[in-house]
Amino acid sequence: MFSVTVRDHMMIAHSLRGEVFGPAQRLHGATYVVDATFRRASLDADSIVVDLGAAAEQLHAVLAELSYRNLDDEADFAGVNTSTEVLAQTVADRLAEKASAGALGETARGLDSLTVTLHESHIASASYERPL
Amino acid sequence: MFSVTVRDHMMIAHSLRGEVFGPAQRLHGATYVVDATFRRASLDADSIVVDLGAAAEQLHAVLAELSYRNLDDEADFAGVNTSTEVLAQTVADRLAEKASAGALGETARGLDSLTVTLHESHIASASYERPL
Amino acid sequence: MFSVTVRDHMMIAHSLRGEVFGPAQRLHGATYVVDATFRRASLDADSIVVDLGAAAEQLHAVLAELSYRNLDDEADFAGVNTSTEVLAQTVADRLAEKASAGALGETARGLDSLTVTLHESHIASASYERPL
Amino acid sequence: MFSVTVRDHMMIAHSLRGEVFGPAQRLHGATYVVDATFRRASLDADSIVVDLGAAAEQLHAVLAELSYRNLDDEADFAGVNTSTEVLAQTVADRLAEKASAGALGETARGLDSLTVTLHESHIASASYERPL
Amino acid sequence: MFSVTVRDHMMIAHSLRGEVFGPAQRLHGATYVVDATFRRASLDADSIVVDLGAAAEQLHAVLAELSYRNLDDEADFAGVNTSTEVLAQTVADRLAEKASAGALGETARGLDSLTVTLHESHIASASYERPL
Amino acid sequence: MFSVTVRDHMMIAHSLRGEVFGPAQRLHGATYVVDATFRRASLDADSIVVDLGAAAEQLHAVLAELSYRNLDDEADFAGVNTSTEVLAQTVADRLAEKASAGALGETARGLDSLTVTLHESHIASASYERPL
Repeated sequence: MFSVTVRDHMMIAHSLRGEVFGPAQRLHGATYVVDATFRRASLDADSIVVDLGAAAEQLHAVLAELSYRNLDDEADFAGVNTSTEVLAQTVADRLAEKASAGALGETARGLDSLTVTLHESHIASASYERPL
Repeated sequence: MFSVTVRDHMMIAHSLRGEVFGPAQRLHGATYVVDATFRRASLDADSIVVDLGAAAEQLHAVLAELSYRNLDDEADFAGVNTSTEVLAQTVADRLAEKASAGALGETARGLDSLTVTLHESHIASASYERPL
Repeated sequence: MFSVTVRDHMMIAHSLRGEVFGPAQRLHGATYVVDATFRRASLDADSIVVDLGAAAEQLHAVLAELSYRNLDDEADFAGVNTSTEVLAQTVADRLAEKASAGALGETARGLDSLTVTLHESHIASASYERPL
Repeated sequence: MFSVTVRDHMMIAHSLRGEVFGPAQRLHGATYVVDATFRRASLDADSIVVDLGAAAEQLHAVLAELSYRNLDDEADFAGVNTSTEVLAQTVADRLAEKASAGALGETARGLDSLTVTLHESHIASASYERPL
Repeated sequence: MFSVTVRDHMMIAHSLRGEVFGPAQRLHGATYVVDATFRRASLDADSIVVDLGAAAEQLHAVLAELSYRNLDDEADFAGVNTSTEVLAQTVADRLAEKASAGALGETARGLDSLTVTLHESHIASASYERPL
Repeated sequence: MFSVTVRDHMMIAHSLRGEVFGPAQRLHGATYVVDATFRRASLDADSIVVDLGAAAEQLHAVLAELSYRNLDDEADFAGVNTSTEVLAQTVADRLAEKASAGALGETARGLDSLTVTLHESHIASASYERPL
């Protein structure tokens, strides 16, 4: 099995609902350093998993729709707890949509799965893995 | 599949038995930077894998029982070669006990698996993965 | 010259004023991974620069006053552009106050200078250095 | 499941064929920071996955055959696009040969699988995983 | 004293002249992860050291002139040993030219000094510091 | 001003004397990831600060004399508190002796200063800087 990973980041404000979140129930924010890992069983005709430039560009586009925003005010997240886990899933699902729309190139349709990891500090991260 | 990872560290002395360990057969020591990764297929009612604060607290408690000690003198490791692999398993098993005792909260009973990674330097690490 | 560095982090929301900040003029947020470096020419009677435990504790206390907050609503920052540079200075000045109040121990009065670095992502950071 | 990872690096020149590579079609180069991860279900008689010293030595030997070279001139890569993915597979396959030849010790024959990851920058990497 | 640092990278091929370089006398290559640190005694009117976006853009422009090239064939380096140290100085000098030409904005003329660090692997780097 | 940095590590056991060290008064241990930074105002005839291979080799030799040992039993440290700061100074002084004995090559006599940093975990480090 092959994989490639690209890294970018986003900076957002939000608050979380639920006693389990303690002080993070207040409006605060985070930088998420984001790793997107694409996997496939065999390489394409160019001997790669996916066009790294296209993958970086699409990841950047997905993060740009979230970054420099207060997620509490975004319609897409109305009624949603924007935990790191939920945001990892959001980024992964949006990347998957782009892949299936052809934004990563035709051969990217051969991808098997995708993992998105959000590093929220030097001591904590969350991931979501899904098939493609 | 979702996961979250928390990081902490411990500092121990020990010696290893077996020619394969070369100079590490002498009494020496290590800092282990420890990553604990918890996995589950779907999120709990708070939209998280596990209470990150509780996970960090329990990891810290497990490491505090080992840290600032000479493992060669600990009854728990009598007759045991405290390789990085064995210590990764020890930390994972103790975290699993805490999870099953409810220390990570009731919803943590929905966790699927746990991986503990011990980074012993900038060039070497060991991991142990087990079901929960 | 000797130095010691301790690391911790904080998570805040804020907005920045000035065209130079582009989209960061909107309410957003950041995780700052914070390094505090203490320097002195010669070691104290315990052969250290500063009590590492006390330094970590005081850094944590300073960051706890800022973390999980929207800095736009904090009286301390009324009329202040909370750039990464300004926040580095704020953390450094508050640590310096604690040092001069004795919170780092009596021998910490022999410290020469302090640098605080805030890493806002994997590709950007800001620092402030001051005498003690 | 247990694993251990060792890290080393290599520095090579090469060019890539195919429009997808853009400016990387020109002769350029890369440092690859290489992680080799060995896995097995249970530990050997010394309570380890593999002799870490032997694993580091064999990884170094494999990388030394590639490093400080222009891969475009190497007979082994004639007609091959030396993408990061292909190089990850090359390193993994050569390590696997060494393992099956006994270079990691007799007990290393109990290894289950191997993953080789090449980090080509702070924002991109590629991996190849195979059974042993 | 304040500073800000931005990070980017470049990938080049080259060979080095002199017995001291051993196997690096052969044509090979490197990824340099590049940190550019800008310093000034007091902040500008926007409470920053320099426009981070402009600094990142100019660093990227300087690196783009070097990246994906064989430096042995570049007229700018004819008769020059392109050691990591020399490349750090080259990047710093070109950034300094851009700063003095106003590419970092008018207030960037208040900058005091610049350090450029090139990380060539996980175990080696070189830096060059100069006044602005 | 130019500098180059090389990284290696050592693993030791020790105990510390003084109430300030809390649980670290017990016999425990540490991995120190060690950075040695060499500085000079202008480059030598080979366009480098120091022979990187020789610097790495000498750093390794200095660390090998300390590693895989219980420093409490070493005659060199009798009556000495082997704090991270003291060990940073020890490594720096021993490297300086090697440099002045010619082990880094004749041109290394032009070096200005040396900083040794010991990273004892992901959240703490200590440094010592001295002239050469």
